[in-house]
Amino acid sequence: MNDMAHKTLRAQPTSDEIWATFQPIVSGDDYVDSLRDRHLKVYLFGELVEEPVDHPMVWPSINALKATYDLASEEPELATARSHLSGDPVNRFLHIPHSSQDLVMKNRMQRKLGQITGTCFQRCAGLDSISVMHSITYDIDRAHGTDYHPRFLTFLTKLQKHNQIIAAGMTDPKGDRSKSPHEQADQDLFMRVTRRNQAGLFVSGAKAHMTGGLNSHWMMVLPTMRLSEGDKDFAVIGVVPLQAEGLTYIYGRQSCDTRAMEAGDVDKGNAQYAGQEVLVIFDDVFIPWEHVFMDGEYEFAAPMVERFTAYHRASYVCKTGLGDVMVGAAATIAEYNGLEHVSHIRDKLVEMTHLNETIYSSSIASAHESKPLSSGAWINDSMLANVCKHNVTRFPYEISRLAQDLAGGLMVTLPSQQDFESSETGSILEKYFKGREDIPTQDRVKILRLIENMTLGRNAVGYLTESMHGAGSPQAQRIQILRGMDVEKKKWHARKLAGIKQVD
Amino acid sequence: MNDMAHKTLRAQPTSDEIWATFQPIVSGDDYVDSLRDRHLKVYLFGELVEEPVDHPMVWPSINALKATYDLASEEPELATARSHLSGDPVNRFLHIPHSSQDLVMKNRMQRKLGQITGTCFQRCAGLDSISVMHSITYDIDRAHGTDYHPRFLTFLTKLQKHNQIIAAGMTDPKGDRSKSPHEQADQDLFMRVTRRNQAGLFVSGAKAHMTGGLNSHWMMVLPTMRLSEGDKDFAVIGVVPLQAEGLTYIYGRQSCDTRAMEAGDVDKGNAQYAGQEVLVIFDDVFIPWEHVFMDGEYEFAAPMVERFTAYHRASYVCKTGLGDVMVGAAATIAEYNGLEHVSHIRDKLVEMTHLNETIYSSSIASAHESKPLSSGAWINDSMLANVCKHNVTRFPYEISRLAQDLAGGLMVTLPSQQDFESSETGSILEKYFKGREDIPTQDRVKILRLIENMTLGRNAVGYLTESMHGAGSPQAQRIQILRGMDVEKKKWHARKLAGIKQVD
Amino acid sequence: MNDMAHKTLRAQPTSDEIWATFQPIVSGDDYVDSLRDRHLKVYLFGELVEEPVDHPMVWPSINALKATYDLASEEPELATARSHLSGDPVNRFLHIPHSSQDLVMKNRMQRKLGQITGTCFQRCAGLDSISVMHSITYDIDRAHGTDYHPRFLTFLTKLQKHNQIIAAGMTDPKGDRSKSPHEQADQDLFMRVTRRNQAGLFVSGAKAHMTGGLNSHWMMVLPTMRLSEGDKDFAVIGVVPLQAEGLTYIYGRQSCDTRAMEAGDVDKGNAQYAGQEVLVIFDDVFIPWEHVFMDGEYEFAAPMVERFTAYHRASYVCKTGLGDVMVGAAATIAEYNGLEHVSHIRDKLVEMTHLNETIYSSSIASAHESKPLSSGAWINDSMLANVCKHNVTRFPYEISRLAQDLAGGLMVTLPSQQDFESSETGSILEKYFKGREDIPTQDRVKILRLIENMTLGRNAVGYLTESMHGAGSPQAQRIQILRGMDVEKKKWHARKLAGIKQVD
Amino acid sequence: MNDMAHKTLRAQPTSDEIWATFQPIVSGDDYVDSLRDRHLKVYLFGELVEEPVDHPMVWPSINALKATYDLASEEPELATARSHLSGDPVNRFLHIPHSSQDLVMKNRMQRKLGQITGTCFQRCAGLDSISVMHSITYDIDRAHGTDYHPRFLTFLTKLQKHNQIIAAGMTDPKGDRSKSPHEQADQDLFMRVTRRNQAGLFVSGAKAHMTGGLNSHWMMVLPTMRLSEGDKDFAVIGVVPLQAEGLTYIYGRQSCDTRAMEAGDVDKGNAQYAGQEVLVIFDDVFIPWEHVFMDGEYEFAAPMVERFTAYHRASYVCKTGLGDVMVGAAATIAEYNGLEHVSHIRDKLVEMTHLNETIYSSSIASAHESKPLSSGAWINDSMLANVCKHNVTRFPYEISRLAQDLAGGLMVTLPSQQDFESSETGSILEKYFKGREDIPTQDRVKILRLIENMTLGRNAVGYLTESMHGAGSPQAQRIQILRGMDVEKKKWHARKLAGIKQVD
Repeated sequence: MNDMAHKTLRAQPTSDEIWATFQPIVSGDDYVDSLRDRHLKVYLFGELVEEPVDHPMVWPSINALKATYDLASEEPELATARSHLSGDPVNRFLHIPHSSQDLVMKNRMQRKLGQITGTCFQRCAGLDSISVMHSITYDIDRAHGTDYHPRFLTFLTKLQKHNQIIAAGMTDPKGDRSKSPHEQADQDLFMRVTRRNQAGLFVSGAKAHMTGGLNSHWMMVLPTMRLSEGDKDFAVIGVVPLQAEGLTYIYGRQSCDTRAMEAGDVDKGNAQYAGQEVLVIFDDVFIPWEHVFMDGEYEFAAPMVERFTAYHRASYVCKTGLGDVMVGAAATIAEYNGLEHVSHIRDKLVEMTHLNETIYSSSIASAHESKPLSSGAWINDSMLANVCKHNVTRFPYEISRLAQDLAGGLMVTLPSQQDFESSETGSILEKYFKGREDIPTQDRVKILRLIENMTLGRNAVGYLTESMHGAGSPQAQRIQILRGMDVEKKKWHARKLAGIKQVD
Repeated sequence: MNDMAHKTLRAQPTSDEIWATFQPIVSGDDYVDSLRDRHLKVYLFGELVEEPVDHPMVWPSINALKATYDLASEEPELATARSHLSGDPVNRFLHIPHSSQDLVMKNRMQRKLGQITGTCFQRCAGLDSISVMHSITYDIDRAHGTDYHPRFLTFLTKLQKHNQIIAAGMTDPKGDRSKSPHEQADQDLFMRVTRRNQAGLFVSGAKAHMTGGLNSHWMMVLPTMRLSEGDKDFAVIGVVPLQAEGLTYIYGRQSCDTRAMEAGDVDKGNAQYAGQEVLVIFDDVFIPWEHVFMDGEYEFAAPMVERFTAYHRASYVCKTGLGDVMVGAAATIAEYNGLEHVSHIRDKLVEMTHLNETIYSSSIASAHESKPLSSGAWINDSMLANVCKHNVTRFPYEISRLAQDLAGGLMVTLPSQQDFESSETGSILEKYFKGREDIPTQDRVKILRLIENMTLGRNAVGYLTESMHGAGSPQAQRIQILRGMDVEKKKWHARKLAGIKQVD
Repeated sequence: MNDMAHKTLRAQPTSDEIWATFQPIVSGDDYVDSLRDRHLKVYLFGELVEEPVDHPMVWPSINALKATYDLASEEPELATARSHLSGDPVNRFLHIPHSSQDLVMKNRMQRKLGQITGTCFQRCAGLDSISVMHSITYDIDRAHGTDYHPRFLTFLTKLQKHNQIIAAGMTDPKGDRSKSPHEQADQDLFMRVTRRNQAGLFVSGAKAHMTGGLNSHWMMVLPTMRLSEGDKDFAVIGVVPLQAEGLTYIYGRQSCDTRAMEAGDVDKGNAQYAGQEVLVIFDDVFIPWEHVFMDGEYEFAAPMVERFTAYHRASYVCKTGLGDVMVGAAATIAEYNGLEHVSHIRDKLVEMTHLNETIYSSSIASAHESKPLSSGAWINDSMLANVCKHNVTRFPYEISRLAQDLAGGLMVTLPSQQDFESSETGSILEKYFKGREDIPTQDRVKILRLIENMTLGRNAVGYLTESMHGAGSPQAQRIQILRGMDVEKKKWHARKLAGIKQVD
Repeated sequence: MNDMAHKTLRAQPTSDEIWATFQPIVSGDDYVDSLRDRHLKVYLFGELVEEPVDHPMVWPSINALKATYDLASEEPELATARSHLSGDPVNRFLHIPHSSQDLVMKNRMQRKLGQITGTCFQRCAGLDSISVMHSITYDIDRAHGTDYHPRFLTFLTKLQKHNQIIAAGMTDPKGDRSKSPHEQADQDLFMRVTRRNQAGLFVSGAKAHMTGGLNSHWMMVLPTMRLSEGDKDFAVIGVVPLQAEGLTYIYGRQSCDTRAMEAGDVDKGNAQYAGQEVLVIFDDVFIPWEHVFMDGEYEFAAPMVERFTAYHRASYVCKTGLGDVMVGAAATIAEYNGLEHVSHIRDKLVEMTHLNETIYSSSIASAHESKPLSSGAWINDSMLANVCKHNVTRFPYEISRLAQDLAGGLMVTLPSQQDFESSETGSILEKYFKGREDIPTQDRVKILRLIENMTLGRNAVGYLTESMHGAGSPQAQRIQILRGMDVEKKKWHARKLAGIKQVD
């Protein structure tokens, strides 16, 4: 048993008791150790997982988060920032942006981590949730005289000191979409407060699509959409440690996920890194008041969601890091096939890059064009963040298509690693799959498996489908663009140029 | 042991001896039985496969071919035709097109089989290879006084009578692409004649990407590209039975292929049908003269390839059948989510359909606009066939992207079938994944797994990557379009309208 | 005064009296003559046009129609057909399609005329209106015991014999789009019957966007949309000669239209051919019963419109003829610049051709896949015709963009023809605009002016904007695709493959 | 004669003599006056133009430049900046960017002017040429010990003080593109020094596509491409006043240009503003040494061009201002048709906005991500500037296509303004073109004419074709993207993730 073992929690632990179960994390290895021995109730393939950290399907997703610690050590100017609370350097994923430069640096770190991991490193929603809670708690306090903001700052100070990971749980199951939360037949379809006592409150419900949910130390639960007065008990925001009583985790499947459990690394494509999505069930989970940041102030659900999306849609800049890997992989297979100077191939690499940089430009622009909120936190320009995310629902698919074009059909007809290593078939395959003289056949195979991984396999989930739906499906961005486009001003200019008499 | 068991073949069997090992096939079940007990040397995951028919990963690909027999029984007007050799009805996959109507009906059958199987049913390249050999053998005979054409017709008559499947082996490994076949360091990188005797000839080499290679009775080997005089020994076309001595098969992997070996059908997405790609190694494989249809007439390699692509690029109409399934699956999940009448969702279904029918129109047009060759066989219009295939390298990706849009993120975060069926988690999942009251949760899961199957999983290989590279990668079509576009005539019209004095 | 001069018509002429004003047309020159001395009331730039035939802005549009006569003489197998009424050869624009081959040949003729004229030759809507009236009159007669069909055939026989042009007037001004015809405040906003007598009926209203309206001998007026019982008086179809009393024509402007009135041909781009759109006002215009083909049978308005669009949306194949000219013009300027073998330029020509042939394939496919109606007339496949037209709303814009890419910026900065011919500046321009040594500078200028003409100028109206809105705007096609896509069948296939228990 | 009349210049005037001919400009009206009485030799339609300022075709282009003065008065914080030379506020078009904020503000000003004018306001190339000369003269001086930089600063100081406009002349006619300047048969095909004396040097040649060339006070001539040692005499940069001896101007035509000479404003679409392109011939034009900023330092031609494009490709942000007008015009016609809340129409407005903001994001990002050069001037990020311009070669065409979709066919069939105003036809047109009750028919017409103007007419030249070719055609950006994409780094990441042993 490692020395970071978690102490047992009482049924209704105080904040201090919870914090006492944690030890500060310094290195990436510390982080991995910190996840052990938590005795979480995790189901996968119908069975309880003994120790997720050691499960071959789970581990690569943990390793992707480990990269966020390693980068902070290796490139502190990029991946750390000076906390406005303690004045100490903290991991940038725990830093509330206090300037446009903070948001720009966040952006650059995200692209870098995309390049390093080639997958979803699962830490952006958590960062974006603490960013948004900085201003939302401030605004609630000003409106209601509550003390959520200082509470939140106290929590955040400790979180930064412990250098922990917080995940965001937003997506409720929603049930019948034509009904509001309190109108649902089953009240658990949106997370809600079931009861309150002097020490805290209890919540029940579920959060779906929890990215990296299992690999975090804390989860923040937040409403998923605009609420009305009848939904007061659903207007709850708080943080819970992953080992809280009443939590059950069910692991989501991904394309090609079980290759992680096969022998050998080649067919995995990207053996080191992967994403993670879990469903988390909350069965009367206790949250002490110190960890509650909204309780009933339903009118702040809408601005919270809108601000969160302004942050989070710009976070999809991470996909440009994956795009860099796609371009690199496509260029590598072209090189291995001796075709890198063929004009149509160079042209496709340029097109992939052009699309990738177009995404980047919307994101980095939304950071540069950010504005301060009343709490002092800065927020991305909403129009440009939405434009960024909307391009992310399109261009990675085209980049992926072009990568498959350059990869050639071999990508989907390659035999297994075992066949390449077999004494019966290995030499035959070596003979027939040989390309350029100076390139080992295995290297050709490996780069093709990487492209398969990112366009069809495990990380295609992150590069494509998550690009489509994460931070809101395409239509959600279109609605925001419609709201933000100021069509009246544009009509005014048009009428003026057309020589139409203006009424106003 | 079943009553269709294959007799053993001598080292250099005569044509009659080979045919004596086969019994005519009537039903789809006969077909499946006919594949048993062939003792093929098949490698998968580094091991010999005992009986491919019974292998859970192989079986769905056999089942897809079985559908071509079943359809012939169920819809004979669609999937059979009257042989111009025997006058008897034969499976349309064995019928040489003798009119544009034949090509149109082939097209409709292909779309239908795409709808039925949702995958690659692996029989088009074989049909297209016998179609092209009808005219090529005829033309060689006229040029060289050979008797390939009657030989071919004799073979085809028997093939039709036995109602068997023939696969086409075209793609050589190619090695260093800057060198012609006879210039390669390793002469095996293109299939070639190693020696000849009174009874026949011997070939060595390998054929990659052999679609349905394992599920056929015969393979036709054909040159993969234009040949020159030095390549005479590579200018060989012939047919071999799958159980011929000297053949080794190595099975290609596909995204999510091992889900076929998991318990339960849900996570497979499409449990019944799948494609298949194998690498086939030819080690001094004997072909009796009766089965040789080209030997040295290198100048016919180029027209053979060009005519083959005219047939085969139009065969990609099959993807419109898969496209129909994609549209249907997307419409179903929209219905299950209660969103089918939302305007942006209907609009996306229309867009998917529009793209799908655009592909269809190019293919069916190339059939209607077909022309007869001197042998009496008809061939698709080449420009329209290339346009069809070129659209196939684009639109299925966009259709797939739109299907993922309508599917929602749940498609890639769903827990496993085991979790849905577990006593621990089943009821929880049932509770939280409930959508419309009247739709069983399992049905929502199943339709999402089908979309996953076709856009990321096993049949995405056929719907996307094979659409990109089968029958030639995109650039191959662009070269053909460039050759066929008659730019001089277009320039003439432009100059005329511009008032430029015409020289001619 | 020429010998084809038109006799004066009485206020309520009989059919015979009208026909007596016409002489049969044989040649293209006859056609031009036949338009003279009609004393039509035509307004242009606020003034009456003395003789449209001699007006420099009108003439090129007449010349485009003349090409339909010339082609019939030069390529009779393409541009004539044997009438099913008289058994004589007639211009194909007057021929009711009686087989899919008829529709295919119509298609080919349209593409050819697009190549010859580089503009809208204005005769398709007329052909499509007589095609649709063949079956509609037949169907009305069967439902109501009327005798519209024989009346129509009598008219058509004479029309064919006189070899005249008929234009179609469909688009009513429509007014308040939320109201049906009879609910409009101003009853003239849809064409309607104002009174009836023994000899015939009178109509009032207006028809907008009448393509080639001025260049025809007859106009057929048809309802523009589905009608209900209250709209009975609006359910009128009939034909009127252009010189009928009560008609007023107002000429529509086009981009760069007045260049036609400048000296010199170069800056016109395409000096010979242009399109034409007029607004026609009907003020109590008399139609003898012999020329009335619907009067009150409102329930046939919807099928008439639907069938008309099936014909007419496929007629947009003409744009592939213009597309051929665009490709030819782009290839020519590339050649004149010495750049035709540069890879990105060849690639763009291929892309233009691919898009153009994609349009062609949908159209020709809809012709090949046509079906007979009960009257014996054949009609295009509706889905493919809609797909064709929908691609026409997209691809010409992209072809045009690529042509502008190849043209270079010079296309929009070239001085006027006068400057090239001036003694002051001519030699300077010759010196500085010289490209390839062997290409006259004027030829470079001319081909650039042609591209300007088709992408920004007078024929851009036909190549682009008319491609967008003619035969219905994009959304109209989407609605038809939605109706015709048989989503239930597609859902059935999807559910089956997903393993969902089918209810039906 | 106005009081800003220009004094006559001697054949080889000194710098002081030239400056003495100018008076400082304060207001927009001063600017217009400053252009009068210059006696320039301007040809249009083969004739000398008496006074360009009063020519109806020229005036709207002058008015567009006037807007740059007016904006400086009305919104000084946007359109002026504090000179780093004098410390005084100067028009931002004369301000060398000394921070990323300067480039951001330039960007915003450009978008605003696009909104105000709906056309090319012709002043960006001049600004970008002085921006690039700041660092290039500095770098030449450091390399060669010359004094170009102080000379340039002296000139710039006076230019700012006089508040004048400078245009950039880059594009040489180029002749045979396979030859370098000094290899051309006709040495005038690239601008060159013909002789030098104590006072200055003389240049001959021509500059094509000079945007706003006639509306400026000064022209800077710069090499158009990379030069080699043999091209020393072509490596010349200097400034000349427009009234210099030896200059001839030939005016370029634009689509619909002569509508400017028609009576009435409606059919012009945008009666107030237009662009301008002229060809300028230099026949032995004298430049005093004080105005020479490069003479023979050929190796600086390449970096000059590359830096210029980094500035200038980002300047195409102006098209987002025109895009705003397009969106506004499309929304207005939808409103006038009572269709603004129809879902497919709103969706198209969102798409237009999304594309427009995507362009904006690349441009503003390239400004924010700018870097300082050694001279102290800041320069846009080159990759993002190229991405911006590359999107500008695509998206305005799609925005324009969508605007035509929303406009409806009426846009290209509308009668002339004269017909609307005629006593004969005015009331008829009023009756039949009436849309929504509360919207004057003329307003519908005007907004349609504006869309015509921007998608087919005079300002389509600026919105579309200039977007394609200005600051380099699409292929030029692709080459820059290829150079800047650092493919080796991307390949490194791909190999690492694929598990390929890295060599470096």
